[in-house]
Amino acid sequence: MNMTQSEARPAATGQAVARLLRPASIAIVGASPTQGALGASVLANLERNDYPGQIFLVNPKRDEINGRPCVKSIEQLPDGIDVAVLAIPQAAVLDAVRQLAARNVGAVVVFSAGFAEAGPEGIAQQQEIARIAAQSGMLVEGPNCLGCINYLERVPLTFIETDVSAEQASRNRSQPAIGILSQSGAMMAVLNTTLASRDLPLSYAVSTGNEAASHLEDYLQFLLDDPGTRVIAIIAEQFRQPGRLLEFACNARRAGKLLVLLHPGRSAAARASAATHTGAMAGDYSLMRTKVERAGIVIAQTLEELGDIAEIGLRCARLPTRGAAVLGESGAFKALCLDICEDLGLELPVIDGDDSPALRAAMPPFVAVSNPLDLTAQGLVDPELYYRTLSALFDDDRFSAVVIGLIQTDPVTCAIKMPSVLRAVRELRPHKPVICAGLDEGAVVPSEYIDQMRELGIPYFPSTERAFRAVARLSELGTRDFAKAAFEPIAVDVPRQSCVVPEYRAKQILAPLGIPFALGELATSLGAARKIAERIGYPVALKIQAAELSHKSDVGGVVLGVSEARALEAAWVRLHDNVKRHAPCAALEGVLVEAMGERGVEMIVGARHDLQWGPVILVGFGGVTAELTRDVRLLPHDLPKEAVMREIDRLKSAPLLHGYRGAPALDIGALANVVVRLGALLQAEPGIREVDLNPVVVYPQGQGVLALDALMLLETNHRTDR
Amino acid sequence: MNMTQSEARPAATGQAVARLLRPASIAIVGASPTQGALGASVLANLERNDYPGQIFLVNPKRDEINGRPCVKSIEQLPDGIDVAVLAIPQAAVLDAVRQLAARNVGAVVVFSAGFAEAGPEGIAQQQEIARIAAQSGMLVEGPNCLGCINYLERVPLTFIETDVSAEQASRNRSQPAIGILSQSGAMMAVLNTTLASRDLPLSYAVSTGNEAASHLEDYLQFLLDDPGTRVIAIIAEQFRQPGRLLEFACNARRAGKLLVLLHPGRSAAARASAATHTGAMAGDYSLMRTKVERAGIVIAQTLEELGDIAEIGLRCARLPTRGAAVLGESGAFKALCLDICEDLGLELPVIDGDDSPALRAAMPPFVAVSNPLDLTAQGLVDPELYYRTLSALFDDDRFSAVVIGLIQTDPVTCAIKMPSVLRAVRELRPHKPVICAGLDEGAVVPSEYIDQMRELGIPYFPSTERAFRAVARLSELGTRDFAKAAFEPIAVDVPRQSCVVPEYRAKQILAPLGIPFALGELATSLGAARKIAERIGYPVALKIQAAELSHKSDVGGVVLGVSEARALEAAWVRLHDNVKRHAPCAALEGVLVEAMGERGVEMIVGARHDLQWGPVILVGFGGVTAELTRDVRLLPHDLPKEAVMREIDRLKSAPLLHGYRGAPALDIGALANVVVRLGALLQAEPGIREVDLNPVVVYPQGQGVLALDALMLLETNHRTDR
Repeated sequence: MNMTQSEARPAATGQAVARLLRPASIAIVGASPTQGALGASVLANLERNDYPGQIFLVNPKRDEINGRPCVKSIEQLPDGIDVAVLAIPQAAVLDAVRQLAARNVGAVVVFSAGFAEAGPEGIAQQQEIARIAAQSGMLVEGPNCLGCINYLERVPLTFIETDVSAEQASRNRSQPAIGILSQSGAMMAVLNTTLASRDLPLSYAVSTGNEAASHLEDYLQFLLDDPGTRVIAIIAEQFRQPGRLLEFACNARRAGKLLVLLHPGRSAAARASAATHTGAMAGDYSLMRTKVERAGIVIAQTLEELGDIAEIGLRCARLPTRGAAVLGESGAFKALCLDICEDLGLELPVIDGDDSPALRAAMPPFVAVSNPLDLTAQGLVDPELYYRTLSALFDDDRFSAVVIGLIQTDPVTCAIKMPSVLRAVRELRPHKPVICAGLDEGAVVPSEYIDQMRELGIPYFPSTERAFRAVARLSELGTRDFAKAAFEPIAVDVPRQSCVVPEYRAKQILAPLGIPFALGELATSLGAARKIAERIGYPVALKIQAAELSHKSDVGGVVLGVSEARALEAAWVRLHDNVKRHAPCAALEGVLVEAMGERGVEMIVGARHDLQWGPVILVGFGGVTAELTRDVRLLPHDLPKEAVMREIDRLKSAPLLHGYRGAPALDIGALANVVVRLGALLQAEPGIREVDLNPVVVYPQGQGVLALDALMLLETNHRTDR
Repeated sequence: MNMTQSEARPAATGQAVARLLRPASIAIVGASPTQGALGASVLANLERNDYPGQIFLVNPKRDEINGRPCVKSIEQLPDGIDVAVLAIPQAAVLDAVRQLAARNVGAVVVFSAGFAEAGPEGIAQQQEIARIAAQSGMLVEGPNCLGCINYLERVPLTFIETDVSAEQASRNRSQPAIGILSQSGAMMAVLNTTLASRDLPLSYAVSTGNEAASHLEDYLQFLLDDPGTRVIAIIAEQFRQPGRLLEFACNARRAGKLLVLLHPGRSAAARASAATHTGAMAGDYSLMRTKVERAGIVIAQTLEELGDIAEIGLRCARLPTRGAAVLGESGAFKALCLDICEDLGLELPVIDGDDSPALRAAMPPFVAVSNPLDLTAQGLVDPELYYRTLSALFDDDRFSAVVIGLIQTDPVTCAIKMPSVLRAVRELRPHKPVICAGLDEGAVVPSEYIDQMRELGIPYFPSTERAFRAVARLSELGTRDFAKAAFEPIAVDVPRQSCVVPEYRAKQILAPLGIPFALGELATSLGAARKIAERIGYPVALKIQAAELSHKSDVGGVVLGVSEARALEAAWVRLHDNVKRHAPCAALEGVLVEAMGERGVEMIVGARHDLQWGPVILVGFGGVTAELTRDVRLLPHDLPKEAVMREIDRLKSAPLLHGYRGAPALDIGALANVVVRLGALLQAEPGIREVDLNPVVVYPQGQGVLALDALMLLETNHRTDR
C-alpha cells in the first residue's frame, strides 16, 4: 500500500456522506428473493424499517422480487440514485462501481472482502475503486464493511438484521445520541447491539472497512456536524488521516462532544494482526495515543470500557473533572474500592467528620465520615439515609462525581433503597455525574428502577469495578491540561537535505534555540585541534564527525577526558586508527573538540516528527540501563513548560531530580525548557525528522543542563497530514 | 489487640462447626413477631426453608410467636441445643453468651456489631466472649457477622431473606458445589446472590465477622472435609491463622479443590480501612500474596473476578495448565484479544497453517490459521465450521483451554451458531476447559443455550475480557511450580538473643552456608588492622562494627579503597572521629578490615521471617536507585534453585545479567544459590528474623557472587503460627 496515496484527501464531502446516510433512493445490486442472501437481507431490512424512499432492485435473472420490479443491469437504473448497495461477489464489484459512477450514483456500499487485505490483485482493484471515486465524486463505503445504519430515520444499509421501531427512532431524535464509527464491520454490529441493549439512543452507525475512498474521518466530520450526536464511539485499527482526526477531535472538545476510542495495537502482536486483516499498516500505538489524548479523545482498552465510557458520556450532563465520592454499604467494599481506585488512578478525596459537617449531620454517629462511605446496613432501617448523604455529597465541591455501590439482594431490598436514591437525584438535581452500580451482579433488580435512573441521567452499571474504570478514564480527561505552549518564532538554519547531520553540525543548527552545549569546535587537523583545546581548556573530548557514524562510540570514534596536549595527539591518532579499522569508507568531516561536561543525572530528550501524526517529544532517564527501565514519557510537542515539568515529575525515578538522598534538587525547569524548545523547533521546521539529545545532564537548581551529544535527521520531502 | 492471643488455636473443632452448619435444634434469642426485626427475619427464613429440626424462641415479653411457644429467658431453654442465634442488641450479647454456654449450647451466632471494631470497651467484651468460648467449648460465630447458610439442607442462620428451594438443595447436593467464606457479612451476601444468579450450586456460606472465637480457617477446614465442596471462594481482610490457612490450602490443592481469594489491601489506604472496620491489623499484602500463592490459592482482584474464577473452577472438570486458543469471528476482535492477553500475561500459542494441518483442513482456504482464529462471518453460512474448528482445537495439545468469543446479535443468530458449539462439546467431550463469551454484551441470548452450556460444563461469560481475565489467573496457577527445595541440614551457630548483629558477626554466623564474603577480620586496634590488611593484601575496606550502627555509612563508619599502610592509619583515625561525632554512645566492637570486592552488577538479597506468615526471600537489583525502580521479587523461601533462577529472570532489568551490551553473562546460578541457602537457613533457624545482603555483587558466569555487606536481626521469642 502506498501510504502517501492513502493519506490524500478523500472525495467524501459532508454532502456525499449525507446522501449515503439519509438517502431518498436506494438501489440494491444483487437483489435476491432467497432468504439468507445478502441482497434479500438488505431489502428485508429496508422493508422492516418502513423505508419511505424509492427502492430499485438489480438482478440479471429476475423481473420482480417480493412484488417489486427488478431491472437486469445497472445501466437500466435511473440517473442520480442516492445509494447503491452491492450485494454481489467480489469479482463483480469493480465493474459495478464503474457502471454506478456512470449512472451518477451518490454513494456505493461495498460489503465484499478480498481487496487490499487479500494481496496484490486486491490492492490494485481497491486502488482502481479509489480512482473511480475520486474522478466521479461518488462516495464508496468499504469495501470489506458491513454498511451503515441511520437510527434517526430508520435506514439500515446493511445485511445484519436491523429493527429500529418508529418509537425508538423518535426517541433517538428527541435526545442526544451516540454515533458509532468502526473500521471493523463486526465491531460496529457488536457495539450497536450492546449500546441498544442499554437503552442508549443512537444516531448513526458506520463501518468503514478497508476505506478505499472514504475514511473514518469523513464520517466523523458528518457526526460532529450532526447536532443530535453528542458522543461518538470509535473502533479503529489505523487512522488514515491523523491530521483531520486531531483537528476534528479538538473541535469536538470545544463543542462539548465526547470522542471515545478503542484502538487495538498496544501489543506488537495486535499491530501485526491488524496489518494482515485490513491491509493497513498500524502505526506506533503510544505515539497515536499521545496525540489523540492531546486532542481530547478518551481511550478505552476493551469493548466493555468503550460502552461504559460512552454511556456515562451520554447520560450525564456533566463529566467528572477530578476526584469522586463513593457511597457504599460495607467496610470490605470500602477497602476494595480503595485498592481498585488506586490501580485506576481515580482520586477518592480523603474526608473526615471535622471537614464535612453536612455529611456528619446526615448520618448516625456510629457511621464514620470517610470516602468511600460505609453506611453499613443502616439504610435498610433508615432508607432516608441515602437521600441525606447524597444531598451532602452533591453539595460538596471536593467531589466531581458520585459513585453509589448498592447491595441490591432482591426486589424487596431494591424497593427499600432505590427510591431514596432516585428521589435525591430527582429533587436535588446535582451538578455532577451520579453513577449507580450493584455489588451483587445478577441480583434481580426491578427494571422500573433502572428505567427511572436512566431517565434521571444516572448510568446503571452491573458492577462497581466497571463504574470506577469508566469514571477514572473520564476523570483523567477532566484533569487533562489542554493549554498550549506560546511558541516564540525560531530562526534556525536547516539545510534542505535528507541526511543524518553529524553532531557538530546539529549543535550549530540548534544553537539559536539556546540549548546548552559544551564549548567546542570542529578540527580538521591535529594542529587545529590543539589550538581549539588550548582555547577552551583541558580536559577535552574528541569525537569523530561523519554523517555515516551516528553511533560514533561503537567504532571507537570518541575519546573522553583528554587532559593535555600530548594526550591529545595520542587520542587523535587512536581515534583515526579506530575509525579506519571499523568504518574505512566513512567520509570524515573532522573531529569535534569539546570541553568535558561535568557529571550529573543523565536524561534523554528526543524529538520526532512522525509522518502520520506530526511532532512528539520524548523525555526520560538516560544512562546505560535506560532501555531496560524505560522510564520515559512521550509528550505532545506543544505542552507549556509547566505541563512539561509535571510530566517529568510523573517519571518513576523523578525523586532523583528532587534532591535524592541528600543530593541537591536539580534544575527541572531548564530540562523542561529544552523540551519546549525542541517542540517549537519541530513545529517550525518540518524538515527535521528527528533530534536526539542523549545524554542531557541535569545540574542543581539554577545551574541548568548540558546536552552532551546531539543527533539530527533531516528529510526534505517530509510531508505529513498534520 | 494482642496479635499473639488472636493467633492462638481456636476452640472450633470440625464437630462444633458441623453442629452450627447442620443443627438439629435452633434457638432464636430475641425472637420477634415484628416484620423487619432481625429475630422475625431469622424465624421467617427457617420457616420459608421448611427447617425440619426443633426451633426454640426466647423473648422476655412473649408466650408465643407465630403460633410457636416462646420462653422468657435463656435459662428456660433445654440443655444442649445445637445453635442459638442472637437477635438482640449489642449490650445484651455478652450476658447471653455466658448464659448459653451454661446451657451447653453448641454454637452461637452473633450478628451485633460494636465489639473489637468499636474501641477499648468493645475489645474487652470481645475478649471475654473468646474466653467463654474457649472455656466452654461453645463455638461463637461473629460478632459483627451475618450468620451462615447451609445450601445443601436448607438451613439459613441469617436475617437476610433466603429462599433455597427443595429442588435447588437437591441440585446442590447432587453435584460439586462452591463454598463461600467471608469475614464481611455484606460480602458473603453479595457473593451468595451473584453465584446463585449464575445457577452455580452452593454448599455452605459462612460470614466470620470479627472472629472472636472462631476463625475463617475453622470453617475452611470443615469445607475441605466436605466432599461436595469443590471450590471455596474466600473474602478476607486478615488471616488470623496464616499457618493453618497455608496448610489447608496445600491439602486442598492435593485434593483437587480450588481456593480463590479476594483480599483487599493492595493499597495502603485499603489496609488502613480494614483496620478501622474490623478492628484487625492488616499485614503486608505482598508477603501474604507470596505465601498464599505458594500454597496454591488463586488471588482475585475484584468481586467480578472472584465469581468468574470460581465459576470456571467449578464448571470445568480440568483447569487450564498453560496457554489458550481463542475462537473468534472478527479481525478487530483478534487484535483486541492479543492486546488484552498480553496485558494479562495469558499465553496464546502462535500457530500457522503449516503446523496445524487439522485446523487448516477444518476451515475454508480464505480463513487463515492463527491464534486467535478469525472465522470471519463464515459461520453464518456454514455453522458446522464451529464444530470442525473446535474439534481441531480440542485435539491440539498446544492449547490447555479454548475461549470462544461469539457475536451473538439476536436469537436468530444464536440459533445458527450455538448448536454447533454445543454439539462439539457434547460429542467430543474435550479434555480441556471450554469457555464461551459474548462480544456483544446485552444481546438477547435464549436461555436454553446458556442452560445447555452450563450442563455441558461450559462457563458462559457476558464479555470476553472477563473470560480472559479468569482464564489468565487459572493458567497462572496451572503453570505455578510447586516443587520445594531439598534443603540440606545446616549447622549454624545462632546466638539466642534479640539484637542486631553487626556485620562481622553476621558473616561469621552465615559462613557455614557457603555464601561468599570478602576476606576479612575484626581488628580492635590499629596495629591489628595493619596486620590483617597485610595478610589479606591492600586495598582494603574499613567498616566500624557496633550493633547500634546498622547503617554505618550514614555515620561515616566506612572507608573504602584503603591502598596502603599510611592510608590505613589515616582512615582508622577518620573512622573513629566520624563515629565519635555522629554516634558518641555506640558501643564499638572494633573495625572490620576486609579485602575490597571487585565491581559488578549489584543485587540485593534479603530474608525475612514474618511473625504471621513465616520466611520469605527478596531478591532484586540494588544500587543507589533501587528504592525508586523497585525491581525486586518477593519469593517463597523454599523454591528450588531452578525456580529461583526463573524468578530472577522475571526481574525487569534481568537482561543486565545476561550479557548486556557486550558484557559477559553473569553468574545467576550463584546468586540463586544465595537465595536458596538463606531460605534453608530461615527455615532451620526461626530465631533469625531478618538477614540483608546488600549489595551482592554478581560476577561473570562461573565466577560467582560476593556479598559485600550483611545485616542480621535476631529475636529469641520469635514464634510464628507457621
